[in-house]
Amino acid sequence: MGKAYRLGEIAERFGGELAGDPDIVVDQIASLESAGPANITFLSKPQYAPLLKSTRAGAVILPAQGYVEISIPRIRCDDPYLYFAKVSSLFNEIPEVKPGIHPSVIVHRKAIVSSLAQISAGCVVAAYARIDEGAVIGPGCVLEERSHIGEHTRLVARVSVYQGAKVGKRCLIHAGVVIGSDGFGFALERGQWLKIPQIGSCQIGDDVEIGANSTIDRGALDDTVIEDGVKLDNQIQIGHNVYIGAHTAIAGCVGIAGSAKIGAHCTIGGGAVILGHLSIGDHVHISAGTLVAKSIKKPGTYTGIFPTDEHRNWLKNAVQLRHLDSLADRISELEKKERYK
Amino acid sequence: MGKAYRLGEIAERFGGELAGDPDIVVDQIASLESAGPANITFLSKPQYAPLLKSTRAGAVILPAQGYVEISIPRIRCDDPYLYFAKVSSLFNEIPEVKPGIHPSVIVHRKAIVSSLAQISAGCVVAAYARIDEGAVIGPGCVLEERSHIGEHTRLVARVSVYQGAKVGKRCLIHAGVVIGSDGFGFALERGQWLKIPQIGSCQIGDDVEIGANSTIDRGALDDTVIEDGVKLDNQIQIGHNVYIGAHTAIAGCVGIAGSAKIGAHCTIGGGAVILGHLSIGDHVHISAGTLVAKSIKKPGTYTGIFPTDEHRNWLKNAVQLRHLDSLADRISELEKKERYK
Amino acid sequence: MGKAYRLGEIAERFGGELAGDPDIVVDQIASLESAGPANITFLSKPQYAPLLKSTRAGAVILPAQGYVEISIPRIRCDDPYLYFAKVSSLFNEIPEVKPGIHPSVIVHRKAIVSSLAQISAGCVVAAYARIDEGAVIGPGCVLEERSHIGEHTRLVARVSVYQGAKVGKRCLIHAGVVIGSDGFGFALERGQWLKIPQIGSCQIGDDVEIGANSTIDRGALDDTVIEDGVKLDNQIQIGHNVYIGAHTAIAGCVGIAGSAKIGAHCTIGGGAVILGHLSIGDHVHISAGTLVAKSIKKPGTYTGIFPTDEHRNWLKNAVQLRHLDSLADRISELEKKERYK
Repeated sequence: MGKAYRLGEIAERFGGELAGDPDIVVDQIASLESAGPANITFLSKPQYAPLLKSTRAGAVILPAQGYVEISIPRIRCDDPYLYFAKVSSLFNEIPEVKPGIHPSVIVHRKAIVSSLAQISAGCVVAAYARIDEGAVIGPGCVLEERSHIGEHTRLVARVSVYQGAKVGKRCLIHAGVVIGSDGFGFALERGQWLKIPQIGSCQIGDDVEIGANSTIDRGALDDTVIEDGVKLDNQIQIGHNVYIGAHTAIAGCVGIAGSAKIGAHCTIGGGAVILGHLSIGDHVHISAGTLVAKSIKKPGTYTGIFPTDEHRNWLKNAVQLRHLDSLADRISELEKKERYK
Repeated sequence: MGKAYRLGEIAERFGGELAGDPDIVVDQIASLESAGPANITFLSKPQYAPLLKSTRAGAVILPAQGYVEISIPRIRCDDPYLYFAKVSSLFNEIPEVKPGIHPSVIVHRKAIVSSLAQISAGCVVAAYARIDEGAVIGPGCVLEERSHIGEHTRLVARVSVYQGAKVGKRCLIHAGVVIGSDGFGFALERGQWLKIPQIGSCQIGDDVEIGANSTIDRGALDDTVIEDGVKLDNQIQIGHNVYIGAHTAIAGCVGIAGSAKIGAHCTIGGGAVILGHLSIGDHVHISAGTLVAKSIKKPGTYTGIFPTDEHRNWLKNAVQLRHLDSLADRISELEKKERYK
Repeated sequence: MGKAYRLGEIAERFGGELAGDPDIVVDQIASLESAGPANITFLSKPQYAPLLKSTRAGAVILPAQGYVEISIPRIRCDDPYLYFAKVSSLFNEIPEVKPGIHPSVIVHRKAIVSSLAQISAGCVVAAYARIDEGAVIGPGCVLEERSHIGEHTRLVARVSVYQGAKVGKRCLIHAGVVIGSDGFGFALERGQWLKIPQIGSCQIGDDVEIGANSTIDRGALDDTVIEDGVKLDNQIQIGHNVYIGAHTAIAGCVGIAGSAKIGAHCTIGGGAVILGHLSIGDHVHISAGTLVAKSIKKPGTYTGIFPTDEHRNWLKNAVQLRHLDSLADRISELEKKERYK
């Protein structure tokens, strides 16, 4: 499939300390269990060390520290997981762009499509939509008026980009993603909801990845903004006027309500919910399944999940939880009596 | 972009008390911070009042009460947020329908398409599917047999409507929505799941909005029903045979299990889960992230979320939570001893 | 619509004890309330028994035990719900396959499409994609390189199957599903995320159903595996390298993080979250809304949800929950004093 490299070449390129035959050739990365002689593997966590004995890999990436008794050619380095990521990118290059517009594509005559972009079968590109050099629009995507796809960005398949939404350079947008849909904004008039036109836009920075079927709303008046290097997993919902700082990573199924402001270098665990109109500082880590109802300024890890237990145990404790306030009162009462004895 | 209006015309149309130059012309609504001289802005919450001093807006919508020292032309009214919604709708009209069927559309000869409907590129319309006057079917939609799209309803892009599902008038259905998919119904036969054919339909009323990538299942035997004026945000899942009463609004990522019955004029916060076969009355408000496991009859606000805390604090409390039942017993024991002293 | 059957024929086919006229003809199944004279209905739960008096059904499926005073022709059986599923499948057959490729489909000349498969309008089929006999690819699907759709599997509409992903036989994949998208894998390098190429595949067994807009990621190195007979509801997210054992059923909006291993014959309730790199044994049942943060070996039901209450009650208890650890200390203190009296 990909290219093959000598172990010596890999060490020259990415550093680390090589031991064993530098001329052994590998052509793919693989896990300790499934690797064969043409594969390089890696040990990122000590608990997997026993697997080293039985691995059939041709070479292995190891941590700089720690004694390991093996004869397989190896590279020792400070961060084997990061090293693995780099080696894997070497073997698994992004597919080449094949510039051109498939004949089945419906492109409005006022769309602005680079001759170096690739537009795949079944896409629809509206007036004033702009697709820059090296961009790849996969099958079945819909780009509406004045949307803008930056250089070398890839939309995998069936992605919708609404009017005026902008995606930066070198982004990877997976199948089924919707960018720039209307925010959820209504005013109540005698018990009925009157729609507030959503006229802000959606600005996505460079080097952003967005997972399958995630949705990002456009702003109500001002813009929804996703900064450079943000990574979003699958099925994430980003409300209108949300701001997400650079290099924040968000796991699957997270919902972020309107006008929330998330800092840079944060991580948010799967299934978490961030309420609207609050602010989370830089370097904040939210545990999976946690609901954030107040702003968080201080860096750190924050959690709010009900511990899971066997159902009958949970039931006994949950019943008491409904009386926790009165339990606290009863303790205070006992303490008072104790004090006045 | 849109039309321009004199401030006097706006006050005539929507009421309120005008102060300052009625002849000032504005052509778009904007937030206090981003508004320029051709924009009208609004103050909906007192905490934003300080921004009034620095706004560059040409005009402003203010609450009827409260002293504000500004010279900008202004309209005072009872509900500035509602007023803003109306003014915004004036400037931001729904795009005009362009009747006709794009040549790339695959329409079955037995489909029933109004000559005043617009069917955009890349759609597939099956036999006996019916699309009424003024409806707009955006790019890449799939309408299956006997589905029905009412007058002036818009499907933005890549919407799927299954067999026999019906969408009412003036609805707005966002990209990636699926209407009428099979409910999750299986009978267990010796440890394996036997599918129960889902033969009910999906009935969506008038003036309903459904957010991007939301899914609504058809009924198992009888129908799933969404009443008039319901507003659904993105990535909501509605199970089979659910009933949602009129003018209920549901925020993003909510899941409603099969045969749940939700009343009218309810609100459900983001990420909430409503279990199946239960009933929620009218005017009930469910907080974000709350799981509803029992029916709720009484109007009011209901909540069930674990308070979020710094991880080490959460951990200490969560550990005790597993012993809450025995803590309660120990309190009772202490009280008993106290009593018999 | 479907075929009609005499009640006697039904009893011959599926067993049970027939009472009343065996020659009555029914042509569809219906609920107790909505059934008419040409329908057969069923009683699966005792609480619905009162509806038997007023049902207009032509025939009814009843539990083997329990006195019911009706004159309607009836079949008594051990499991009326299972019986109903079987009878319904009789009346509601899967639509016939219409072999052939719609002229609008873009099929790569190196795709391998059975002449007995049906490829509907607007699909895109890439090189080396393989579609077997009896498979039905609904409108607007995208099958990428080397994907494989097994015999008699149906993709309803707008499904994306990434490179190399394999779907087994007799599966039903609903609209908007994404199979084989990149897992969420990044290594941190000086505060920025470096993508780890996702080169594993996605293997889906036979007789699997996947609900609308669900997403299943491909593995990072090894494969993501969904075993035979698994049933997934709508809007489920399955991370990379997850393994799901045979005949496990998962309700809507569940998220399963990377490398989690779920056993066979499990059920997972709606909105639950399963964290990554943990293991759940066979016959484990996770309640809706529960977050599983640790491995579970023992079969049984597990729960972890905050009980929902009126907001003001919840607030009082939630406030105390933040002090639960110190409440426990205060109880211990009181007990100590009591002991040393």
